[in-house]
Amino acid sequence: MNCDLKYMKMALKLAKKGQGYVKTNPMVGSVIVKNDVVLSTGYHRAYGEYHAERNAILNLKTPAQGATLYVNLEPCVHYGKTPPCTDIIIDSGIERVVVGTLDPNPIVAGRGIDKLRKSGIMVDVGILKDECGKLNEIFFHNIKTKMPFVALKFGMTLDGKIATSSGMSKWITNEEARKHAHFLRSIYSGILVGINTVIKDDPMLSCRLVGKRNPVRIICDTNLRIPLDCNIVKTAKEQKTYVACSVKESNKIGALKKAGVEIIMVEPLNGHINLKQLLFKLYDIGIDSVLVEGGSEINYSFIEHGLINAVYSYISPKLVGGSSSKTPVGGAGIRDLNDAINLKNENVRFFGDNILLEYRSACFGK
Amino acid sequence: MNCDLKYMKMALKLAKKGQGYVKTNPMVGSVIVKNDVVLSTGYHRAYGEYHAERNAILNLKTPAQGATLYVNLEPCVHYGKTPPCTDIIIDSGIERVVVGTLDPNPIVAGRGIDKLRKSGIMVDVGILKDECGKLNEIFFHNIKTKMPFVALKFGMTLDGKIATSSGMSKWITNEEARKHAHFLRSIYSGILVGINTVIKDDPMLSCRLVGKRNPVRIICDTNLRIPLDCNIVKTAKEQKTYVACSVKESNKIGALKKAGVEIIMVEPLNGHINLKQLLFKLYDIGIDSVLVEGGSEINYSFIEHGLINAVYSYISPKLVGGSSSKTPVGGAGIRDLNDAINLKNENVRFFGDNILLEYRSACFGK
Repeated sequence: MNCDLKYMKMALKLAKKGQGYVKTNPMVGSVIVKNDVVLSTGYHRAYGEYHAERNAILNLKTPAQGATLYVNLEPCVHYGKTPPCTDIIIDSGIERVVVGTLDPNPIVAGRGIDKLRKSGIMVDVGILKDECGKLNEIFFHNIKTKMPFVALKFGMTLDGKIATSSGMSKWITNEEARKHAHFLRSIYSGILVGINTVIKDDPMLSCRLVGKRNPVRIICDTNLRIPLDCNIVKTAKEQKTYVACSVKESNKIGALKKAGVEIIMVEPLNGHINLKQLLFKLYDIGIDSVLVEGGSEINYSFIEHGLINAVYSYISPKLVGGSSSKTPVGGAGIRDLNDAINLKNENVRFFGDNILLEYRSACFGK
Repeated sequence: MNCDLKYMKMALKLAKKGQGYVKTNPMVGSVIVKNDVVLSTGYHRAYGEYHAERNAILNLKTPAQGATLYVNLEPCVHYGKTPPCTDIIIDSGIERVVVGTLDPNPIVAGRGIDKLRKSGIMVDVGILKDECGKLNEIFFHNIKTKMPFVALKFGMTLDGKIATSSGMSKWITNEEARKHAHFLRSIYSGILVGINTVIKDDPMLSCRLVGKRNPVRIICDTNLRIPLDCNIVKTAKEQKTYVACSVKESNKIGALKKAGVEIIMVEPLNGHINLKQLLFKLYDIGIDSVLVEGGSEINYSFIEHGLINAVYSYISPKLVGGSSSKTPVGGAGIRDLNDAINLKNENVRFFGDNILLEYRSACFGK
């Protein structure tokens, strides 16, 4: 295998060790190599701590003169919580830097590389670019859009139903698939549902896997219909809960706040919450990713406004039929096929007899 | 690799050479081996011609004394169009026979093997049983049920729609997927749709692949609403066409017959055609397999009566939404999830960005 590929893969593996600890920073790993011997490695361990390149350089036991540094993301050139990485790289005597992807912020993209090159360091960019981009897809999306990364998740029968004609939905997917869906809840910062789901199912929206973190709960509730005695309100002090509404005045607001619920005021749009505005507000309060778990009306609102970045569709090997049975995405529907939301398949996974099809929006990352 | 596996695989490969020529017989291949050397091979070439075992024995250039014969299906013990295979095997001096699967007809299953054993031949059964059963799944189903093998085929968006909310369905699936759907038409004996599809789309229901055969067309048309000037009626003399109806008297019948359409009279059941009765009649006229291509109402009728043996679902990476958009299976729907039709996944295939999920009914073959 090509050495550059080998060491960039090592950097990616190191980067992943920061998963769950570095938010809202990217995951970054770095490897310093000379004559095909690894001199040192480092990764970004936690938000606010040193960057990967700095850690790799600080971990060196021999001088870096003539060595190559591998890093999955362009070294920073600005002062943030820590000093710029370009400076320590230049000072270290490193001869060549191999970079996976440029900084996602178009205003600073390329600046780190320029500075390195100007100091006489040889720089190669784009090694395992796709893998490097994929690793930090949420971070990249956040930087570019100032919105959380939004994934739609549903479980359906092979004939496209999320419930039978009588409304029965427990359980369409099998235990292994549902377990994986709980894992998704643990890796997304927030979980979002519409008020109808709360009223109908009275869910907890927690992650039921031992040792995994709970997502923040976000309820879209334009007219503040949420019952004060529902499970979500009752547990709002244990699991952070936001209710987004367009109601300016309501004596319910005080009661909800007292129960620990935080209210996000969002302007209405065609009788619903302005979802784009909600997403901006969610990102502002530090939510980098949201898993949308329906129902079918709110799923359509996200699709209608082009706000879906990823889809997880669990397909159960069942047929139930029913022209009025609920499907994953309802609403008015897109009329012209040419206006359909296009996706690209990322992954196919098997959970027993259930199949998970994972997609990204076709325009995602472009 | 185990020798038995190796030679049974060879027999299966030979058997497949009869695909498309042996209907309504099974595909069978046979290999004669001595001291790990192949002495001779044979397969069932065409309906009415010699069986595989006989061909293999007739192809021998050296005596079969002490040899082993491999065959994917139990040798026949009865006189049909050709004499029983058991007799020629016994006469040949073969010492051991390795069989993939028993005869599917429960009345004769095991008789061929009994006869061989009684004559002193060693017999092993069940080598690559699943592969051998799969190869002749249509034949096995026919023998057991006296009905054609029925497969449901549809193309849908990832959110389970076969058309947008305005009824637009051209094209949900991509060209490669549609090409494969045409290939399916060439391997199924019949293609079946409901009258609504004929009235709405005026389809040809032909196989558009060069050099491939057309399926027989079957239209379910309870009240004989088929327009005399539709494409199907206009081409009934070129592509065999059956219209199944429950109308006893109609002056349309004469006109349809004159146009080349054959009428199948079927009793009504709850205002629709009795599909099970139709399937018995189709098998009686030599149709061993039927591809059901919708629409969503007739698809449900097949599912409701438990008549689906296989499903081909092409999934297009699009989202269109719409609570009233058509889904692959409509109708009243199964109310209780415990009554859902259960399937088992057989295959996942990729056609560009479309994914084909292929299933068998979970109770199929049991």
